[in-house]
Amino acid sequence: MEKYMSLLQETALFMSLSAKEIGKVLEIAREVKFAEDDIIMKEGDFGDTLYIIRKGTVEVAKCLTMEGMEDDDRAMEKNKVFTRLDESQHAVFGEIALLEDTKRTATIRAVTDCICYEIRKDDFLRLAEEDNQLGYRILLNLARIVSARLRKADEDTIKLTTALSIILKES
Amino acid sequence: MEKYMSLLQETALFMSLSAKEIGKVLEIAREVKFAEDDIIMKEGDFGDTLYIIRKGTVEVAKCLTMEGMEDDDRAMEKNKVFTRLDESQHAVFGEIALLEDTKRTATIRAVTDCICYEIRKDDFLRLAEEDNQLGYRILLNLARIVSARLRKADEDTIKLTTALSIILKES
Repeated sequence: MEKYMSLLQETALFMSLSAKEIGKVLEIAREVKFAEDDIIMKEGDFGDTLYIIRKGTVEVAKCLTMEGMEDDDRAMEKNKVFTRLDESQHAVFGEIALLEDTKRTATIRAVTDCICYEIRKDDFLRLAEEDNQLGYRILLNLARIVSARLRKADEDTIKLTTALSIILKES
Repeated sequence: MEKYMSLLQETALFMSLSAKEIGKVLEIAREVKFAEDDIIMKEGDFGDTLYIIRKGTVEVAKCLTMEGMEDDDRAMEKNKVFTRLDESQHAVFGEIALLEDTKRTATIRAVTDCICYEIRKDDFLRLAEEDNQLGYRILLNLARIVSARLRKADEDTIKLTTALSIILKES
């Protein structure tokens, strides 16, 4: 457990937290197991939980075109973008759920059998209200994670608009 | 000032903060004036300040295609997207600077003479470290603002990819 703690201290979400603070977070976490091929969360579904991968690999799939625009499932598959996360990256997913009541922005599938820590929004907010230092540190990390994702999304928008403008000029 | 305080309590950044806490934030803020047409910040420049509009209107311009792809300035103008912010929305801009050392993601121009509160990242982080309750509350708001912007950016990506896929099918 001690070794695992020091691993968690290196994650983007727990950076700069003390081992004691991380322990408090793990107290509100529930260990959950998923079998290979299980869908852990589905894009568009409502969700109020964040996950930290303790063991295993998951695949993140994001639909890139509007719902109903595609003719069949195969076309849908082609328009998804996939990335993989595993325990070596101490990966976290579903983090937006700690901030907002909103739909999942990606589908997460277990590529191998997985063990994850699951943290519920309400439990997290209660803990952060009780221990503002812990709350402040995690929120700063969380805001930075979301901000980095926003920067990446902005870059994607620029690339796509550029591609569109080149195609429209040529046609 | 009291009336202004209650206005600030309605802003996305200061929501759920007490008047006393907002007062602490304003203590580290500097009042800055901009004349009509001044460029307050330029996309791509490094910046470490956040602004709250106290009086006036600004225009937000974001370049939508890659640098150097366009032939002339007029083309560049066409590929920018504009929105306006003013004091009636108690608008905040440059908020990413409180989280990361990163480049400005938009150009902000004063449409009228403006008075803004300017808050420096270092001063903000010092205050938040000193007063974790205040830090926690602002960071929760800030993370939610960034998260909402991320959701919007994701939607834009889906629209653009859909447009691209339709055009490519037709051509």
